[in-house]
Amino acid sequence: MSSKLTSIAHDKLESLLNSRDSARIADVSSMLNDMPPADVAHLIESSTPKLRHILWQLVDTEIEGEVIGELSEELQSLFLAEMDAAEVAVMTEGMADDDIADILQQLPGAVTQEVLASMDQQDRARIERVLTYSEDTAGGLMTTDAITIRARVTMDVVLRYLRRHSEIPSMTDSLIVVNSQDQYIGLLPLRTLLVSDPSASVREMMITDIDPIPANMPDTEVARLFERNDWVSAPVVDENRKLLGRITIDDVVDVIREDADHSFMSMAGLDEEQDTFAPILRTTPRRALWLGINLLTAFVAASVINLFQETIEKVVALAVLMPIVASMGGIAGTQTLTVLVRGIAVGQISRSNQGWLINRELAVGMINGFLWAAVVGVAASLWFNDWTLSLVIAIALIINLITAALTGATLPLFLNRIGIDPALAGGVILTTVTDVVGFLSFLGLATLFYAR
Amino acid sequence: MSSKLTSIAHDKLESLLNSRDSARIADVSSMLNDMPPADVAHLIESSTPKLRHILWQLVDTEIEGEVIGELSEELQSLFLAEMDAAEVAVMTEGMADDDIADILQQLPGAVTQEVLASMDQQDRARIERVLTYSEDTAGGLMTTDAITIRARVTMDVVLRYLRRHSEIPSMTDSLIVVNSQDQYIGLLPLRTLLVSDPSASVREMMITDIDPIPANMPDTEVARLFERNDWVSAPVVDENRKLLGRITIDDVVDVIREDADHSFMSMAGLDEEQDTFAPILRTTPRRALWLGINLLTAFVAASVINLFQETIEKVVALAVLMPIVASMGGIAGTQTLTVLVRGIAVGQISRSNQGWLINRELAVGMINGFLWAAVVGVAASLWFNDWTLSLVIAIALIINLITAALTGATLPLFLNRIGIDPALAGGVILTTVTDVVGFLSFLGLATLFYAR
Repeated sequence: MSSKLTSIAHDKLESLLNSRDSARIADVSSMLNDMPPADVAHLIESSTPKLRHILWQLVDTEIEGEVIGELSEELQSLFLAEMDAAEVAVMTEGMADDDIADILQQLPGAVTQEVLASMDQQDRARIERVLTYSEDTAGGLMTTDAITIRARVTMDVVLRYLRRHSEIPSMTDSLIVVNSQDQYIGLLPLRTLLVSDPSASVREMMITDIDPIPANMPDTEVARLFERNDWVSAPVVDENRKLLGRITIDDVVDVIREDADHSFMSMAGLDEEQDTFAPILRTTPRRALWLGINLLTAFVAASVINLFQETIEKVVALAVLMPIVASMGGIAGTQTLTVLVRGIAVGQISRSNQGWLINRELAVGMINGFLWAAVVGVAASLWFNDWTLSLVIAIALIINLITAALTGATLPLFLNRIGIDPALAGGVILTTVTDVVGFLSFLGLATLFYAR
Repeated sequence: MSSKLTSIAHDKLESLLNSRDSARIADVSSMLNDMPPADVAHLIESSTPKLRHILWQLVDTEIEGEVIGELSEELQSLFLAEMDAAEVAVMTEGMADDDIADILQQLPGAVTQEVLASMDQQDRARIERVLTYSEDTAGGLMTTDAITIRARVTMDVVLRYLRRHSEIPSMTDSLIVVNSQDQYIGLLPLRTLLVSDPSASVREMMITDIDPIPANMPDTEVARLFERNDWVSAPVVDENRKLLGRITIDDVVDVIREDADHSFMSMAGLDEEQDTFAPILRTTPRRALWLGINLLTAFVAASVINLFQETIEKVVALAVLMPIVASMGGIAGTQTLTVLVRGIAVGQISRSNQGWLINRELAVGMINGFLWAAVVGVAASLWFNDWTLSLVIAIALIINLITAALTGATLPLFLNRIGIDPALAGGVILTTVTDVVGFLSFLGLATLFYAR
């Protein structure tokens, strides 16, 4: 059933929904509401702006909350903007508190307060606790929905206690052991509970070698811990080891995906929250800004060329070959930059090994510089039958590839240290450097050599 | 304890290990072997080539298997190349079968056969079953280590059965219900088992609305299913619904990470398995190849400029401004390309919505084209006091930004359809197009306009 709707072509779906044939629209609506919420969200995200509004209106109120929880932030805020506080309050009923917090964070402050006011006191206190932490920290990722037990009880008591619970929260692979002050002591995996002697105590069987996650840990670091330790869920504590909640792998997967998207999109000056099917008016401004920044750097490069008008007039072949020097520098530098940005993102680069890395890149840059200088030098002399030109471009290429390696390796480290995202700013600065050095070395050397 | 070693600077660690002070080396060794295997793997991956060999030798044989399982393929094959079949056999004892399969896939065929021959028949049959599936399919990702139960038994029987097991495999959130032909019927979540009436039957309590994963499903699609449905593990079946094994979220997280890395690294012509600290000789060839490919495209662009030597000789300002036209096209095209490559990677783009997307990109390209054409036109006239030049660069910029949008949007769709990775090949082809069209339109128009 669920695959039926996704297999309908979007254009057919759009014309069907536009047809105002109420029987067929009801048909689509019932198919839609039979799909898993994540699939509905994916369908909406893959739809054009007009269609997604129609689809959203067809979603039943009961699953609205689950669907919106699966949408990207950009689309969440789009749909939330059309809802009033009462509607948001109805929608969030029964949702997990971390998902509610995510939604509230997108609303204007006044609306958030209204929604909170409409909740019962216990729910409200839980949500407010999550809301005190920034979205990109462990506290912002956590859910307060966790089962806690005491260390002194036996497995048998725990089993009976669970049976009295009507439901164990999803992604529960461990029960959390706390003391009377609600401080974290250890974890009792369900796997252990199920195979242990019923008379054994929690204290005997619990694992204590897993450190709880401090609430202010950045989400990227949380993701690294989950990846390295293969966790399904992990407890979150405050500075006094008091248990605040737990983080589950599904939310960590979202962090991993977002971090990866961030690096990928930033390299092209795009926002990782960029909605693939955003309308023209929402896409254009950011793109225009990025083009504007790059235009400034292009003018810088042009003004370097401008210094050498006389030389170019004398030897026009220089104008033919100069983009080669600049572009080779840009490509080589981008490769080094990419390796560094990824190394920084996965936490492999530290002060102690960065020196080695810079040296390695420098060596690679020199080898490639000499290799391609030789090739380009020969090609240029065959093409223009001018050995001076050949020598000039070879030297300029070596200079620019070494510059590219040095800049590509040191720039992201520097930007990272001063708190600027190297994935976003690195490429623009790098290509400005390689363009300027490329044109300056090539045309500068030519001016010297042809002046003789 | 574990954080102690990672906090030692690599250079200090290297000099310490080089010191041949056996007492201190033993100290490092014992610290290393007290660390979680994933942390040891991270330390090795963040180390320079010399240091990582020393560290690997200090790893105890018992945890070697776990450490190697956490390393990237590049490093796995590096260390495996130094081991003989007997050593590999010892190392893989007690490892999960999917991890063993991953390792065996990196060994020469003869060594793999030797290792398999040294296993007992049951283990060997299990591993061979995993090995029949390609690494990047569900079959290659799965472990055969799963607990299966029958539908007719009661919760109580299941609980007693589990207690007789000394251990439940890690990442087990559900028991798999099969019939007498070993065919998949449903799942019994541990969460359900723990809260159900002991006398209820598995058939009553199991969930049957989760489709099992076919063994030949590509790993990227498996990852999407896990992400959308928030699974911790999922059953894998053959074409007759016979249960083969199960996939766990930890391996899926690796797939997500690898896919994201793949797109990111490919855009710069790098291999996602690229080891950040690979030695010079292993890094240089791939980089050199990429530069060579880009050099060819740079020569294509240069030969376009070459057609217009006479025009440039007359108006040298053309040489000054021409990189602006080419570079703006490259930047705008890369943005469109990036949006499309990501949309394809996350499965948002289909035949039915790609038309809308191409139109959107075209519209954005036109708006930005006219906007920046106006700005550049005015800037050029102020700089060179030449309205013809101004007009020529404005028109050329509009042409190139529209070309960039069209190419950036259609090229990845086309490459994807013919089975070429758009993240890898897209950028090179795109910038060749925007360079050629940029130089051709700018210099071509100039030739026309100045000839009047």
